[in-house]
Amino acid sequence: MGMMGASLAASLRKDPGLRIAGVVRSQKSKEFIESHELATEVYCASGLSDLPVALDEFDLMVLGMPVNANGVLLEELGARSAENLPLITDMSSTRTYLEKVAAQFPDLPFIGSHPMCGSEDTGPSAVKEELFRNRLVILIRSSIRSPEKQENFDNLSQFWKHLGSHVFELNERDHDLVLAYLSHAPHLLSSLLATVTARRPEVRNINRQSPIPITGGGLRDMLRIAGSNPEMWRDILQTNRNYIAESLRDLRQGLDELIQTVESDDLDWWAGWQNQSRKDRNEICGYNDDT
Amino acid sequence: MGMMGASLAASLRKDPGLRIAGVVRSQKSKEFIESHELATEVYCASGLSDLPVALDEFDLMVLGMPVNANGVLLEELGARSAENLPLITDMSSTRTYLEKVAAQFPDLPFIGSHPMCGSEDTGPSAVKEELFRNRLVILIRSSIRSPEKQENFDNLSQFWKHLGSHVFELNERDHDLVLAYLSHAPHLLSSLLATVTARRPEVRNINRQSPIPITGGGLRDMLRIAGSNPEMWRDILQTNRNYIAESLRDLRQGLDELIQTVESDDLDWWAGWQNQSRKDRNEICGYNDDT
Repeated sequence: MGMMGASLAASLRKDPGLRIAGVVRSQKSKEFIESHELATEVYCASGLSDLPVALDEFDLMVLGMPVNANGVLLEELGARSAENLPLITDMSSTRTYLEKVAAQFPDLPFIGSHPMCGSEDTGPSAVKEELFRNRLVILIRSSIRSPEKQENFDNLSQFWKHLGSHVFELNERDHDLVLAYLSHAPHLLSSLLATVTARRPEVRNINRQSPIPITGGGLRDMLRIAGSNPEMWRDILQTNRNYIAESLRDLRQGLDELIQTVESDDLDWWAGWQNQSRKDRNEICGYNDDT
Repeated sequence: MGMMGASLAASLRKDPGLRIAGVVRSQKSKEFIESHELATEVYCASGLSDLPVALDEFDLMVLGMPVNANGVLLEELGARSAENLPLITDMSSTRTYLEKVAAQFPDLPFIGSHPMCGSEDTGPSAVKEELFRNRLVILIRSSIRSPEKQENFDNLSQFWKHLGSHVFELNERDHDLVLAYLSHAPHLLSSLLATVTARRPEVRNINRQSPIPITGGGLRDMLRIAGSNPEMWRDILQTNRNYIAESLRDLRQGLDELIQTVESDDLDWWAGWQNQSRKDRNEICGYNDDT
């Protein structure tokens, strides 16, 4: 249980009689979850084999590690008899890798979930009870293995909706493509902006001399996600490298065009470009068109 | 009086007995300022010659138009006898252009100010009384014309500090360089990110089909300033084109390196790069080092 697992437990514990077993990697996390009564039981374990409970005592198992570690868990689960397993889901940010792992085990009762509510805060102490409310959860309808029973899709969808989430289905390829553009590349761009800005010596020195940093709200917003959670993002990068590279190359092409126009003497393009980008922003984010 | 001018008046009107004359371009703005009692008097005028008051009745004149229009006003003021002028300042986002204008008029009592509290909201109805509190105001110590009297610097500095601002002095070149990196390029990058993201058809179509947009808080933050105020930004672009192009080229070089490493099989660079960008972010924004 990290930030998302603890928040999931916190959202569920309102339901009386529900048995929630949490698994953590450190004694400190175990103590936090116990003292905040986030689960009915909590185990400190490094893997499935350490767990002192039988998985089939539960209806649902939610994997909450970074995506590569979730893949390792899925392999371990796939090696077990499917009869002794509950429905399994996860909360990872990339999907093709996990679908490939799952495809090796035709009986594995796994449906991938991506609740879009990650943040730069990590660990169970960053728990937020309403984390899933009004957020999007993408369920994966695999394009590379036979689909799970519709009943399981319905149940899992109901589970997330019960927490206030909106549910949307995509295949793993579309998911990874869209998320590269709408989440992964913007995260890298935020980190890049921090690095490039700090690399220019005059900027750094003058900013240091100022009584308060020379940063408006715009830059602060753009740098909020810079450098977040290296472990999780290493996995995202590794498992969605092609689409991330593709979206960065698109950005690079856009940047080339922008530099060319900025350097030209013509400024007629500007108002149109700026208005279009505002329309684009409003469409992407679902805001009313205010242009 | 736009958003910043109205906010300036709103911050000042607490001082009893102060005469605040506002100048606006539209009847609608005039009515807003009158009905909200933001000034002791307000004039709708298209230029200095329309004004029914003598400027030397005032201690300070604050130009609050986009930078090119402020330059035109400065030229008009420069053509007048300096004896009939109060101390003049402004609130523009770029400085070299205005210093060049002012350099043509050795007697013009002008010291440039850049209060760093612009926003994507425009017009007097976006008034914020505490807009200047805890914000940075950069005063320009010109490197291309003889400096104003120190007394005037002290008075202007006192004026901004009275509103709760922190004051920092830079020459116009350093200002424009640093602001290109810390404000102008990030604004363009936000617009670019919106445009590039929306240009990819699958991303656009899938995002449209989703019950709520597939955008985490990260992307929303990065797109907040996309497409803001085309008129103001056209002027910024025009008057700081070289440094903006320079910072965009630095970003392009950083993006090239990033694409190369993302496409390589090696992931060892990642944690170091991500941690460095977090340190850089924290230094730029003045946050505690939390890495």
